[in-house]
Amino acid sequence: MHHDPADMSVKEIYQLLVQLVVPRPIAWVSSISNDGVTNLAPYSFFNAVGANPPTLMFCPVNRRDGTFKDSLNNILENSEFVVSVVSHDLGDEMNQTAAEFDKEISEFEAVGIASTPSSCVKPPRVAQSLAQFECRLNRVIHLAPGPAGANIVIGDIVQFHVADELISPAGKIDQERLDAIGRMDGASYTRTTDRFELTRKNSGS
Amino acid sequence: MHHDPADMSVKEIYQLLVQLVVPRPIAWVSSISNDGVTNLAPYSFFNAVGANPPTLMFCPVNRRDGTFKDSLNNILENSEFVVSVVSHDLGDEMNQTAAEFDKEISEFEAVGIASTPSSCVKPPRVAQSLAQFECRLNRVIHLAPGPAGANIVIGDIVQFHVADELISPAGKIDQERLDAIGRMDGASYTRTTDRFELTRKNSGS
Repeated sequence: MHHDPADMSVKEIYQLLVQLVVPRPIAWVSSISNDGVTNLAPYSFFNAVGANPPTLMFCPVNRRDGTFKDSLNNILENSEFVVSVVSHDLGDEMNQTAAEFDKEISEFEAVGIASTPSSCVKPPRVAQSLAQFECRLNRVIHLAPGPAGANIVIGDIVQFHVADELISPAGKIDQERLDAIGRMDGASYTRTTDRFELTRKNSGS
Repeated sequence: MHHDPADMSVKEIYQLLVQLVVPRPIAWVSSISNDGVTNLAPYSFFNAVGANPPTLMFCPVNRRDGTFKDSLNNILENSEFVVSVVSHDLGDEMNQTAAEFDKEISEFEAVGIASTPSSCVKPPRVAQSLAQFECRLNRVIHLAPGPAGANIVIGDIVQFHVADELISPAGKIDQERLDAIGRMDGASYTRTTDRFELTRKNSGS
């Protein structure tokens, strides 16, 4: 089947994307308004960008009424955010923070998620998360205004936090302990338990 | 453990990112040089960006000598590329295309991967892939020059291809049939077989 996006609704395009670009890592993004209200929300249009400079990106899509989400407003106000990593046992709390709360309400308080201060930025981290990235805004790219308009937030990582219990004796991250989850479509998520290896052969050239 | 990236090598930062930002979806990117040589290479710093406009992004990091990878050179030359989705049974072929080939050599031919023409762009699609996105360049963002310098390629999706066999009777993508794989660290990948649901509650506000 071939689909020209010009003949599709934004909803149809979104549905295809979230079903075909899988599994997606999850950024649990905390930010803070200039009024001091913290925000916590999950984003799965998220990934690392590179190590030089140390950067990551996530994409907060505009609300149906065309306004920016609170995460984006906060980051535009003060250029700081934190990405906390979501292990399987935090899935339910993460999912609860995806609901639409008034901007005067902190998801940390409303859902009952413990926070812990960051080292370099004002937004707090998720205390129970096993790893977090403190970020300062590198730039925001607005691809389209209006309803469901796409934005890309690129963050410079200014501090890594990794729980000691995540570090294996060999100095690597223990993926069994991290127990990361990825986003599929709709209400579906995947665990990272069904792992396998593909070894790299020498260049064929 | 707390890590200031200013005190870490690029390699150490990269190792933390690929171990902590998991699972990552895989873009199998085809492109073509102005000399007509096709290129096919996998990228896992990849995700959808949004549906308005229909966009995706991937991040080709510079080689150790500071030069651009062939995918990025080709896209800078003619602004076109295709992302093919990688199912579990294509994992070995995908992994073989990650080796460094001379730019005069097509990975399609060197590895023995069948291609099929695209509808709107010159780079071909992977024939056995169950879904592909044809893209035209929206923009490239160069975050740093030199070795391992990060680049972000943002593509406007101009055509979706979805194999008929992927569509369930309800009109959704059959995730069992898609059998997508995600990238973990090093040689490790994960299947998307260990899925679970998190249902969204009403807003708590």
